[in-house]
Amino acid sequence: MLPRHVSEACQRSGRACFLLAIEGEADAAVSAIADAVVPLGAIGRTLVLLKEAGCKDVILAGQVRRPDFRTLSLDLRGARLLPKVMTAARKGDDALLRVLGATLETEGFRLVGVRDVAGELLAPHGRLGAQGPSAQHRADIEKGVSILRALGPFDIGQAIVVCDGLVLAIEAAGGTDLMLKHCVELPEALRGTAAARRGVLVKLPKQGQEMRLDLPAIGPETVENAAQAGLAGIAVGAGVALLLDRPAIVESADRTGLFVVGLKEDEWREGAAP
Amino acid sequence: MLPRHVSEACQRSGRACFLLAIEGEADAAVSAIADAVVPLGAIGRTLVLLKEAGCKDVILAGQVRRPDFRTLSLDLRGARLLPKVMTAARKGDDALLRVLGATLETEGFRLVGVRDVAGELLAPHGRLGAQGPSAQHRADIEKGVSILRALGPFDIGQAIVVCDGLVLAIEAAGGTDLMLKHCVELPEALRGTAAARRGVLVKLPKQGQEMRLDLPAIGPETVENAAQAGLAGIAVGAGVALLLDRPAIVESADRTGLFVVGLKEDEWREGAAP
Repeated sequence: MLPRHVSEACQRSGRACFLLAIEGEADAAVSAIADAVVPLGAIGRTLVLLKEAGCKDVILAGQVRRPDFRTLSLDLRGARLLPKVMTAARKGDDALLRVLGATLETEGFRLVGVRDVAGELLAPHGRLGAQGPSAQHRADIEKGVSILRALGPFDIGQAIVVCDGLVLAIEAAGGTDLMLKHCVELPEALRGTAAARRGVLVKLPKQGQEMRLDLPAIGPETVENAAQAGLAGIAVGAGVALLLDRPAIVESADRTGLFVVGLKEDEWREGAAP
Repeated sequence: MLPRHVSEACQRSGRACFLLAIEGEADAAVSAIADAVVPLGAIGRTLVLLKEAGCKDVILAGQVRRPDFRTLSLDLRGARLLPKVMTAARKGDDALLRVLGATLETEGFRLVGVRDVAGELLAPHGRLGAQGPSAQHRADIEKGVSILRALGPFDIGQAIVVCDGLVLAIEAAGGTDLMLKHCVELPEALRGTAAARRGVLVKLPKQGQEMRLDLPAIGPETVENAAQAGLAGIAVGAGVALLLDRPAIVESADRTGLFVVGLKEDEWREGAAP
Protein backbone atom coordinates (compact mmCIF):
# COMPACT_ATOMS: atom_id res chain seq x y z
CA MET A 1 0.00 0.00 0.00
CA LEU A 2 2.92 2.38 0.57
CA PRO A 3 3.54 2.85 -3.20
CA ARG A 4 -0.05 3.98 -3.67
CA HIS A 5 0.25 6.45 -0.78
CA VAL A 6 3.51 7.81 -2.22
CA SER A 7 2.04 8.09 -5.70
CA GLU A 8 -0.98 9.96 -4.31
CA ALA A 9 1.28 12.29 -2.31
CA CYS A 10 3.22 13.09 -5.52
CA GLN A 11 -0.02 13.86 -7.32
CA ARG A 12 -1.15 16.15 -4.51
CA SER A 13 2.13 18.07 -4.64
CA GLY A 14 2.08 18.27 -8.46
CA ARG A 15 5.17 16.09 -8.84
CA ALA A 16 5.24 13.79 -11.89
CA CYS A 17 5.41 10.14 -10.87
CA PHE A 18 6.23 6.97 -12.83
CA LEU A 19 5.09 3.95 -10.81
CA LEU A 20 7.00 0.75 -11.52
CA ALA A 21 5.57 -2.37 -9.85
CA ILE A 22 7.52 -5.57 -9.25
CA GLU A 23 5.75 -8.60 -10.68
CA GLY A 24 4.43 -10.98 -8.06
CA GLU A 25 5.57 -8.68 -5.25
CA ALA A 26 3.47 -5.54 -5.51
CA ASP A 27 -0.14 -5.65 -4.25
CA ALA A 28 -2.68 -6.19 -7.00
CA ALA A 29 -4.08 -2.74 -6.20
CA VAL A 30 -0.64 -1.22 -6.82
CA SER A 31 0.05 -3.19 -10.01
CA ALA A 32 -3.36 -2.07 -11.31
CA ILE A 33 -2.37 1.61 -11.16
CA ALA A 34 1.31 1.09 -12.10
CA ASP A 35 2.80 2.58 -15.28
CA ALA A 36 4.80 -0.63 -15.80
CA VAL A 37 5.25 -4.04 -14.17
CA VAL A 38 8.64 -5.79 -14.28
CA PRO A 39 9.99 -9.06 -12.86
CA LEU A 40 12.31 -8.73 -9.85
CA GLY A 41 15.41 -9.97 -11.67
CA ALA A 42 14.98 -7.67 -14.69
CA ILE A 43 17.38 -5.02 -13.43
CA GLY A 44 18.52 -3.95 -16.91
CA ARG A 45 14.96 -3.52 -18.13
CA THR A 46 14.04 -1.60 -14.98
CA LEU A 47 16.86 0.88 -15.57
CA VAL A 48 15.83 1.35 -19.22
CA LEU A 49 12.18 1.93 -18.28
CA LEU A 50 13.11 4.50 -15.65
CA LYS A 51 15.35 6.37 -18.11
CA GLU A 52 12.79 6.28 -20.91
CA ALA A 53 10.21 7.73 -18.55
CA GLY A 54 12.59 10.61 -17.82
CA CYS A 55 12.92 9.73 -14.11
CA LYS A 56 15.59 11.57 -12.12
CA ASP A 57 14.63 10.72 -8.55
CA VAL A 58 13.86 7.18 -7.46
CA ILE A 59 11.98 6.07 -4.34
CA LEU A 60 12.00 2.48 -3.16
CA ALA A 61 8.67 1.88 -1.47
CA GLY A 62 6.89 -1.22 -0.28
CA GLN A 63 8.04 -4.67 0.70
CA VAL A 64 9.77 -7.25 -1.45
CA ARG A 65 10.03 -10.78 -0.12
CA ARG A 66 13.57 -12.05 -0.21
CA PRO A 67 13.83 -13.93 -3.49
CA ASP A 68 15.03 -17.49 -3.80
CA PHE A 69 18.30 -16.67 -5.56
CA ARG A 70 18.59 -20.20 -6.92
CA THR A 71 15.42 -19.91 -8.99
CA LEU A 72 15.33 -16.16 -9.69
CA SER A 73 15.25 -15.39 -13.41
CA LEU A 74 17.67 -12.60 -14.24
CA ASP A 75 18.44 -10.39 -17.21
CA LEU A 76 22.09 -9.64 -18.02
CA ARG A 77 22.30 -6.67 -15.68
CA GLY A 78 20.59 -8.63 -12.92
CA ALA A 79 23.07 -11.48 -13.35
CA ARG A 80 26.02 -9.09 -13.07
CA LEU A 81 24.61 -7.67 -9.85
CA LEU A 82 23.75 -11.04 -8.31
CA PRO A 83 26.99 -11.83 -6.43
CA LYS A 84 26.91 -8.45 -4.66
CA VAL A 85 23.24 -8.85 -3.82
CA MET A 86 23.74 -12.34 -2.43
CA THR A 87 26.62 -11.24 -0.23
CA ALA A 88 24.58 -8.31 1.05
CA ALA A 89 21.52 -10.49 1.60
CA ARG A 90 23.48 -12.54 4.12
CA LYS A 91 23.99 -9.45 6.24
CA GLY A 92 20.36 -8.43 6.42
CA ASP A 93 17.63 -6.48 4.70
CA ASP A 94 19.29 -3.15 5.18
CA ALA A 95 22.53 -4.28 3.49
CA LEU A 96 20.46 -5.70 0.63
CA LEU A 97 18.65 -2.41 0.10
CA ARG A 98 21.92 -0.47 0.18
CA VAL A 99 23.25 -2.46 -2.78
CA LEU A 100 20.11 -1.78 -4.80
CA GLY A 101 20.28 1.89 -3.87
CA ALA A 102 23.95 2.11 -4.84
CA THR A 103 23.22 0.56 -8.25
CA LEU A 104 20.55 3.16 -8.96
CA GLU A 105 22.95 5.92 -7.95
CA THR A 106 25.70 4.53 -10.19
CA GLU A 107 23.23 4.84 -13.06
CA GLY A 108 22.78 8.53 -12.33
CA PHE A 109 19.48 8.40 -10.44
CA ARG A 110 19.08 10.32 -7.23
CA LEU A 111 17.77 8.10 -4.48
CA VAL A 112 15.19 9.99 -2.46
CA GLY A 113 13.20 8.84 0.53
CA VAL A 114 9.49 8.65 1.11
CA ARG A 115 10.09 11.39 3.68
CA ASP A 116 11.25 13.77 0.93
CA VAL A 117 8.13 13.51 -1.20
CA ALA A 118 5.42 12.47 1.25
CA GLY A 119 6.27 14.12 4.56
CA GLU A 120 2.59 14.15 5.47
CA LEU A 121 2.81 10.36 5.98
CA LEU A 122 5.26 10.74 8.90
CA ALA A 123 4.07 10.12 12.45
CA PRO A 124 3.78 13.28 14.56
CA HIS A 125 5.04 13.56 18.13
CA GLY A 126 2.56 12.60 20.83
CA ARG A 127 -0.67 10.64 20.90
CA LEU A 128 -2.68 10.16 17.74
CA GLY A 129 -6.10 9.07 18.95
CA ALA A 130 -8.17 9.31 22.12
CA GLN A 131 -6.01 7.01 24.26
CA GLY A 132 -2.55 7.67 25.69
CA PRO A 133 0.03 5.42 27.39
CA SER A 134 -0.01 4.85 31.17
CA ALA A 135 3.12 4.80 33.35
CA GLN A 136 3.34 0.99 32.92
CA HIS A 137 3.01 1.37 29.15
CA ARG A 138 5.77 4.00 29.22
CA ALA A 139 8.01 1.58 31.12
CA ASP A 140 7.29 -1.13 28.52
CA ILE A 141 8.07 1.33 25.71
CA GLU A 142 11.38 2.22 27.39
CA LYS A 143 12.34 -1.42 27.75
CA GLY A 144 11.43 -2.08 24.11
CA VAL A 145 13.52 0.89 22.97
CA SER A 146 16.55 -0.34 24.97
CA ILE A 147 16.36 -3.80 23.43
CA LEU A 148 15.87 -2.55 19.87
CA ARG A 149 18.93 -0.32 20.42
CA ALA A 150 20.99 -3.31 21.56
CA LEU A 151 19.89 -5.18 18.42
CA GLY A 152 20.66 -2.21 16.18
CA PRO A 153 24.13 -3.33 15.04
CA PHE A 154 22.74 -6.64 13.77
CA ASP A 155 20.34 -5.44 11.05
CA ILE A 156 17.46 -7.50 12.43
CA GLY A 157 13.88 -6.39 13.03
CA GLN A 158 12.50 -3.03 13.86
CA ALA A 159 9.80 -4.08 16.24
CA ILE A 160 9.24 -5.68 19.64
CA VAL A 161 6.33 -6.44 21.96
CA VAL A 162 6.77 -5.85 25.70
CA CYS A 163 4.01 -6.60 28.22
CA ASP A 164 4.40 -5.59 31.86
CA GLY A 165 8.17 -5.85 31.52
CA LEU A 166 8.15 -9.23 29.81
CA VAL A 167 9.31 -9.43 26.19
CA LEU A 168 6.59 -11.32 24.32
CA ALA A 169 8.16 -11.21 20.84
CA ILE A 170 10.99 -9.72 18.83
CA GLU A 171 10.57 -9.15 15.12
CA ALA A 172 12.89 -11.09 12.84
CA ALA A 173 12.51 -12.22 9.22
CA GLY A 174 8.74 -12.63 9.41
CA GLY A 175 7.80 -8.97 9.85
CA THR A 176 5.58 -7.09 12.27
CA ASP A 177 2.18 -8.54 11.39
CA LEU A 178 3.38 -12.12 11.74
CA MET A 179 5.00 -11.26 15.08
CA LEU A 180 1.72 -9.84 16.35
CA LYS A 181 -0.14 -12.97 15.23
CA HIS A 182 2.36 -15.07 17.19
CA CYS A 183 1.59 -13.08 20.33
CA VAL A 184 -1.99 -14.35 20.15
CA GLU A 185 -0.66 -17.91 20.59
CA LEU A 186 0.85 -17.07 23.99
CA PRO A 187 -1.07 -18.03 27.14
CA GLU A 188 -3.41 -15.26 28.31
CA ALA A 189 -1.58 -15.04 31.64
CA LEU A 190 1.38 -13.57 29.73
CA ARG A 191 -0.44 -11.07 27.60
CA GLY A 192 -3.44 -8.78 27.55
CA THR A 193 -6.90 -9.45 26.20
CA ALA A 194 -9.57 -7.30 24.61
CA ALA A 195 -11.15 -7.03 28.05
CA ALA A 196 -7.91 -6.10 29.84
CA ARG A 197 -5.39 -4.70 27.40
CA ARG A 198 -1.70 -4.97 28.35
CA GLY A 199 1.59 -4.54 26.52
CA VAL A 200 2.98 -2.35 23.80
CA LEU A 201 4.25 -2.76 20.24
CA VAL A 202 7.35 -0.60 19.75
CA LYS A 203 8.43 -0.03 16.15
CA LEU A 204 11.52 2.03 15.29
CA PRO A 205 14.06 2.44 12.51
CA LYS A 206 17.11 0.23 12.90
CA GLN A 207 20.19 1.98 14.23
CA GLY A 208 22.20 3.28 11.25
CA GLN A 209 19.32 2.42 8.96
CA GLU A 210 19.37 4.06 5.55
CA MET A 211 16.34 6.29 6.04
CA ARG A 212 15.78 6.70 2.31
CA LEU A 213 15.27 2.98 1.92
CA ASP A 214 13.18 1.35 4.55
CA LEU A 215 11.20 3.41 7.04
CA PRO A 216 9.12 1.55 9.61
CA ALA A 217 5.45 1.80 8.69
CA ILE A 218 2.16 1.05 10.37
CA GLY A 219 -1.35 0.97 8.97
CA PRO A 220 -4.83 0.25 10.29
CA GLU A 221 -4.12 -3.50 9.94
CA THR A 222 -1.20 -3.06 12.36
CA VAL A 223 -3.63 -1.60 14.90
CA GLU A 224 -6.09 -4.44 14.28
CA ASN A 225 -3.38 -7.08 14.73
CA ALA A 226 -2.12 -5.38 17.90
CA ALA A 227 -5.69 -5.28 19.19
CA GLN A 228 -6.11 -9.01 18.43
CA ALA A 229 -2.92 -9.67 20.43
CA GLY A 230 -4.49 -7.95 23.45
CA LEU A 231 -2.02 -5.08 23.37
CA ALA A 232 -2.74 -1.70 24.93
CA GLY A 233 -0.98 0.38 22.31
CA ILE A 234 1.67 1.14 19.72
CA ALA A 235 4.70 3.43 19.92
CA VAL A 236 6.61 4.59 16.82
CA GLY A 237 9.36 7.11 16.14
CA ALA A 238 7.89 10.55 15.39
CA GLY A 239 9.22 11.96 12.13
CA VAL A 240 10.54 8.59 10.93
CA ALA A 241 7.64 6.13 11.03
CA LEU A 242 5.15 6.18 8.18
CA LEU A 243 1.45 6.19 8.93
CA LEU A 244 -0.27 4.52 6.02
CA ASP A 245 -3.74 6.01 6.18
CA ARG A 246 -3.68 8.07 9.34
CA PRO A 247 -7.47 8.60 9.62
CA ALA A 248 -8.03 4.83 9.40
CA ILE A 249 -5.29 4.22 12.01
CA VAL A 250 -6.92 6.67 14.44
CA GLU A 251 -10.36 5.18 13.75
CA SER A 252 -9.08 1.62 14.45
CA ALA A 253 -7.22 2.73 17.57
CA ASP A 254 -10.19 4.58 19.03
CA ARG A 255 -12.61 1.78 18.20
CA THR A 256 -10.41 -0.91 19.81
CA GLY A 257 -9.23 1.29 22.71
CA LEU A 258 -5.55 1.25 21.80
CA PHE A 259 -3.18 4.18 22.02
CA VAL A 260 -0.84 5.14 19.19
CA VAL A 261 1.98 7.44 20.18
CA GLY A 262 4.87 9.07 18.31
CA LEU A 263 8.08 9.15 20.36
CA LYS A 264 10.40 12.17 20.15
CA GLU A 265 13.84 11.40 18.80
CA ASP A 266 15.49 11.71 22.24
CA GLU A 267 13.06 9.08 23.54
CA TRP A 268 14.29 6.43 21.15
CA ARG A 269 17.58 7.31 19.43
CA GLU A 270 20.80 6.66 21.30
CA GLY A 271 22.77 9.83 21.91
CA ALA A 272 20.07 12.13 20.50
CA ALA A 273 19.84 15.51 22.22
CA PRO A 274 16.74 15.79 24.41
CA MET B 1 10.64 -34.54 31.26
CA LEU B 2 13.64 -32.97 33.01
CA PRO B 3 12.33 -33.91 36.49
CA ARG B 4 12.15 -37.56 35.46
CA HIS B 5 15.70 -37.45 34.11
CA VAL B 6 16.96 -35.81 37.31
CA SER B 7 15.11 -38.30 39.48
CA GLU B 8 16.61 -41.20 37.50
CA ALA B 9 20.09 -39.68 37.74
CA CYS B 10 19.67 -39.46 41.53
CA GLN B 11 18.62 -43.09 41.68
CA ARG B 12 21.63 -44.14 39.59
CA SER B 13 23.99 -42.30 41.94
CA GLY B 14 22.27 -43.65 45.07
CA ARG B 15 21.06 -40.23 46.18
CA ALA B 16 17.67 -40.16 47.95
CA CYS B 17 15.16 -38.09 46.02
CA PHE B 18 11.78 -36.65 46.96
CA LEU B 19 9.94 -35.59 43.80
CA LEU B 20 7.41 -32.81 44.26
CA ALA B 21 5.25 -32.09 41.20
CA ILE B 22 3.35 -28.85 40.63
CA GLU B 23 -0.32 -29.45 39.95
CA GLY B 24 -1.35 -28.66 36.37
CA GLU B 25 2.23 -27.78 35.42
CA ALA B 26 4.20 -31.02 35.62
CA ASP B 27 3.80 -33.57 32.81
CA ALA B 28 1.35 -36.34 33.62
CA ALA B 29 4.29 -38.79 33.40
CA VAL B 30 6.12 -36.80 36.08
CA SER B 31 3.10 -36.39 38.36
CA ALA B 32 2.55 -40.14 38.12
CA ILE B 33 5.94 -40.90 39.67
CA ALA B 34 5.99 -37.91 42.05
CA ASP B 35 6.04 -38.36 45.84
CA ALA B 36 3.62 -35.45 46.20
CA VAL B 37 1.67 -33.05 43.99
CA VAL B 38 0.99 -29.48 45.18
CA PRO B 39 -0.72 -26.45 43.64
CA LEU B 40 1.62 -23.69 42.43
CA GLY B 41 0.45 -21.13 45.02
CA ALA B 42 0.81 -23.50 47.99
CA ILE B 43 4.23 -22.25 49.01
CA GLY B 44 3.72 -22.91 52.74
CA ARG B 45 2.58 -26.48 52.12
CA THR B 46 5.51 -27.06 49.76
CA LEU B 47 8.00 -25.97 52.42
CA VAL B 48 6.34 -28.24 55.02
CA LEU B 49 6.37 -31.23 52.66
CA LEU B 50 10.06 -30.73 51.82
CA LYS B 51 10.96 -30.48 55.51
CA GLU B 52 8.87 -33.50 56.51
CA ALA B 53 10.61 -35.53 53.79
CA GLY B 54 13.95 -34.57 55.30
CA CYS B 55 15.13 -32.69 52.18
CA LYS B 56 18.28 -30.61 52.49
CA ASP B 57 19.08 -29.87 48.84
CA VAL B 58 16.46 -28.59 46.42
CA ILE B 59 16.60 -28.65 42.62
CA LEU B 60 14.18 -26.64 40.52
CA ALA B 61 13.67 -28.61 37.33
CA GLY B 62 11.23 -28.31 34.45
CA GLN B 63 9.10 -25.51 33.13
CA VAL B 64 6.33 -23.66 34.86
CA ARG B 65 4.12 -21.45 32.76
CA ARG B 66 3.89 -17.96 34.15
CA PRO B 67 0.77 -18.00 36.32
CA ASP B 68 -2.06 -15.52 36.01
CA PHE B 69 -1.43 -13.75 39.30
CA ARG B 70 -4.97 -12.38 39.38
CA THR B 71 -6.53 -15.85 39.60
CA LEU B 72 -3.78 -17.80 41.36
CA SER B 73 -4.96 -19.42 44.59
CA LEU B 74 -2.42 -18.93 47.34
CA ASP B 75 -1.82 -20.22 50.83
CA LEU B 76 -0.67 -17.79 53.54
CA ARG B 77 3.00 -18.15 52.70
CA GLY B 78 2.29 -17.80 49.00
CA ALA B 79 0.29 -14.63 49.63
CA ARG B 80 3.17 -13.13 51.64
CA LEU B 81 5.58 -13.88 48.77
CA LEU B 82 3.30 -12.60 46.02
CA PRO B 83 4.34 -8.91 45.85
CA LYS B 84 8.01 -9.90 45.48
CA VAL B 85 7.19 -12.51 42.85
CA MET B 86 5.07 -10.10 40.84
CA THR B 87 7.79 -7.44 40.85
CA ALA B 88 10.37 -10.01 39.74
CA ALA B 89 8.07 -11.42 37.07
CA ARG B 90 8.08 -8.02 35.34
CA LYS B 91 11.82 -8.29 34.93
CA GLY B 92 11.90 -11.70 33.28
CA ASP B 93 11.97 -15.41 33.98
CA ASP B 94 15.39 -15.35 35.53
CA ALA B 95 14.43 -12.70 38.07
CA LEU B 96 11.33 -14.75 38.92
CA LEU B 97 13.35 -17.89 39.56
CA ARG B 98 15.82 -16.00 41.73
CA VAL B 99 13.03 -14.97 44.10
CA LEU B 100 11.83 -18.56 44.43
CA GLY B 101 15.40 -19.73 44.96
CA ALA B 102 16.02 -17.08 47.63
CA THR B 103 12.88 -18.14 49.50
CA LEU B 104 14.05 -21.75 49.61
CA GLU B 105 17.45 -20.62 50.89
CA THR B 106 15.86 -18.45 53.59
CA GLU B 107 14.11 -21.60 54.79
CA GLY B 108 17.43 -23.36 55.18
CA PHE B 109 17.43 -25.42 52.01
CA ARG B 110 20.49 -25.54 49.82
CA LEU B 111 19.69 -24.75 46.23
CA VAL B 112 21.60 -27.09 43.94
CA GLY B 113 21.60 -27.27 40.18
CA VAL B 114 20.78 -30.10 37.84
CA ARG B 115 24.48 -29.97 36.95
CA ASP B 116 25.41 -30.95 40.50
CA VAL B 117 23.39 -34.15 40.60
CA ALA B 118 23.05 -35.14 36.96
CA GLY B 119 26.25 -34.08 35.22
CA GLU B 120 25.78 -36.85 32.68
CA LEU B 121 22.92 -34.82 31.17
CA LEU B 122 25.29 -31.99 30.15
CA ALA B 123 26.22 -31.55 26.50
CA PRO B 124 29.81 -32.50 25.68
CA HIS B 125 32.11 -30.40 23.53
CA GLY B 126 32.03 -31.17 19.80
CA ARG B 127 29.60 -32.95 17.53
CA LEU B 128 27.13 -35.44 18.92
CA GLY B 129 25.96 -37.41 15.89
CA ALA B 130 27.18 -38.19 12.40
CA GLN B 131 26.87 -34.67 10.99
CA GLY B 132 29.01 -31.62 11.74
CA PRO B 133 28.64 -27.92 10.93
CA SER B 134 29.99 -26.44 7.67
CA ALA B 135 31.83 -23.11 7.45
CA GLN B 136 28.50 -21.36 6.64
CA HIS B 137 26.89 -23.04 9.64
CA ARG B 138 29.79 -21.90 11.83
CA ALA B 139 29.29 -18.33 10.58
CA ASP B 140 25.57 -18.58 11.44
CA ILE B 141 26.44 -19.93 14.89
CA GLU B 142 28.84 -17.04 15.47
CA LYS B 143 26.23 -14.50 14.46
CA GLY B 144 23.68 -16.14 16.71
CA VAL B 145 26.11 -16.12 19.64
CA SER B 146 26.83 -12.38 19.13
CA ILE B 147 23.16 -11.50 19.14
CA LEU B 148 22.33 -13.62 22.19
CA ARG B 149 25.21 -11.91 23.98
CA ALA B 150 23.83 -8.47 23.08
CA LEU B 151 20.45 -9.58 24.46
CA GLY B 152 22.01 -11.00 27.63
CA PRO B 153 21.40 -7.99 29.88
CA PHE B 154 17.66 -8.08 29.17
CA ASP B 155 16.70 -11.50 30.56
CA ILE B 156 14.93 -12.54 27.34
CA GLY B 157 15.22 -15.80 25.47
CA GLN B 158 18.10 -18.20 25.22
CA ALA B 159 17.72 -19.18 21.62
CA ILE B 160 17.90 -17.81 18.09
CA VAL B 161 17.66 -19.15 14.53
CA VAL B 162 20.11 -17.81 11.93
CA CYS B 163 20.03 -18.97 8.29
CA ASP B 164 22.77 -17.89 5.87
CA GLY B 165 23.35 -14.75 7.91
CA LEU B 166 19.69 -13.81 8.19
CA VAL B 167 18.03 -13.93 11.61
CA LEU B 168 14.84 -15.95 11.17
CA ALA B 169 13.63 -15.85 14.77
CA ILE B 170 14.59 -14.80 18.28
CA GLU B 171 13.13 -16.63 21.25
CA ALA B 172 10.98 -14.59 23.60
CA ALA B 173 8.17 -15.57 25.97
CA GLY B 174 6.97 -18.48 23.83
CA GLY B 175 9.98 -20.76 24.22
CA THR B 176 12.18 -22.65 21.77
CA ASP B 177 9.68 -25.11 20.33
CA LEU B 178 7.16 -22.40 19.49
CA MET B 179 9.94 -20.34 17.87
CA LEU B 180 10.90 -23.30 15.68
CA LYS B 181 7.27 -23.79 14.68
CA HIS B 182 7.13 -20.14 13.62
CA CYS B 183 10.13 -20.65 11.35
CA VAL B 184 8.07 -23.12 9.32
CA GLU B 185 5.68 -20.27 8.48
CA LEU B 186 8.43 -18.29 6.73
CA PRO B 187 8.70 -18.43 2.93
CA GLU B 188 10.99 -21.23 1.74
CA ALA B 189 13.27 -18.70 0.04
CA LEU B 190 14.31 -17.51 3.50
CA ARG B 191 14.87 -20.87 5.14
CA GLY B 192 15.99 -24.40 4.44
CA THR B 193 13.87 -27.41 3.62
CA ALA B 194 14.21 -31.13 4.31
CA ALA B 195 15.74 -31.45 0.82
CA ALA B 196 18.20 -28.58 1.28
CA ARG B 197 18.80 -27.89 4.95
CA ARG B 198 19.99 -24.41 5.91
CA GLY B 199 20.31 -22.45 9.13
CA VAL B 200 21.11 -23.15 12.74
CA LEU B 201 19.36 -23.08 16.10
CA VAL B 202 21.71 -21.63 18.72
CA LYS B 203 20.69 -22.18 22.35
CA LEU B 204 22.76 -20.79 25.22
CA PRO B 205 22.38 -19.77 28.85
CA LYS B 206 21.50 -16.13 29.31
CA GLN B 207 24.40 -13.92 30.32
CA GLY B 208 24.47 -13.78 34.12
CA GLN B 209 21.91 -16.56 34.29
CA GLU B 210 21.60 -18.35 37.59
CA MET B 211 22.96 -21.72 36.45
CA ARG B 212 21.34 -23.58 39.32
CA LEU B 213 17.92 -22.50 38.19
CA ASP B 214 17.33 -22.65 34.49
CA LEU B 215 19.77 -24.38 32.18
CA PRO B 216 18.96 -24.44 28.49
CA ALA B 217 17.77 -27.91 27.50
CA ILE B 218 17.14 -29.76 24.28
CA GLY B 219 15.50 -33.12 23.67
CA PRO B 220 14.66 -35.25 20.64
CA GLU B 221 11.54 -33.10 20.04
CA THR B 222 13.84 -30.06 19.68
CA VAL B 223 15.69 -31.90 16.91
CA GLU B 224 12.39 -32.89 15.27
CA ASN B 225 11.10 -29.30 15.38
CA ALA B 226 14.40 -27.97 14.00
CA ALA B 227 14.21 -30.57 11.22
CA GLN B 228 10.62 -29.49 10.44
CA ALA B 229 11.87 -25.90 10.16
CA GLY B 230 14.38 -27.00 7.51
CA LEU B 231 17.35 -26.24 9.72
CA ALA B 232 20.76 -27.85 9.23
CA GLY B 233 21.66 -28.16 12.88
CA ILE B 234 21.69 -27.13 16.53
CA ALA B 235 24.47 -25.57 18.60
CA VAL B 236 24.39 -25.52 22.41
CA GLY B 237 26.86 -24.57 25.12
CA ALA B 238 28.98 -27.59 26.14
CA GLY B 239 28.88 -28.18 29.88
CA VAL B 240 25.85 -25.97 30.40
CA ALA B 241 23.10 -27.25 28.10
CA LEU B 242 21.09 -30.27 29.19
CA LEU B 243 20.53 -33.12 26.77
CA LEU B 244 17.27 -34.77 27.73
CA ASP B 245 17.72 -38.26 26.39
CA ARG B 246 21.00 -38.11 24.53
CA PRO B 247 20.62 -41.39 22.60
CA ALA B 248 17.22 -40.24 21.27
CA ILE B 249 18.69 -36.85 20.32
CA VAL B 250 21.49 -38.50 18.36
CA GLU B 251 19.04 -40.91 16.72
CA SER B 252 16.77 -38.03 15.63
CA ALA B 253 19.70 -35.95 14.40
CA ASP B 254 21.20 -38.78 12.36
CA ARG B 255 17.84 -39.80 10.93
CA THR B 256 16.95 -36.24 9.84
CA GLY B 257 20.49 -35.32 8.80
CA LEU B 258 20.96 -32.52 11.32
CA PHE B 259 24.11 -31.79 13.27
CA VAL B 260 24.12 -31.18 17.02
CA VAL B 261 27.24 -29.55 18.36
CA GLY B 262 28.43 -28.48 21.82
CA LEU B 263 30.30 -25.18 21.79
CA LYS B 264 33.30 -24.66 24.06
CA GLU B 265 32.90 -21.89 26.60
CA ASP B 266 35.25 -19.54 24.74
CA GLU B 267 33.08 -19.97 21.64
CA TRP B 268 30.01 -18.55 23.31
CA ARG B 269 30.72 -16.73 26.57
CA GLU B 270 31.90 -13.15 26.44
CA GLY B 271 35.34 -12.72 27.96
CA ALA B 272 35.88 -16.47 28.52
CA ALA B 273 39.50 -17.59 28.12
CA PRO B 274 40.04 -19.62 24.93
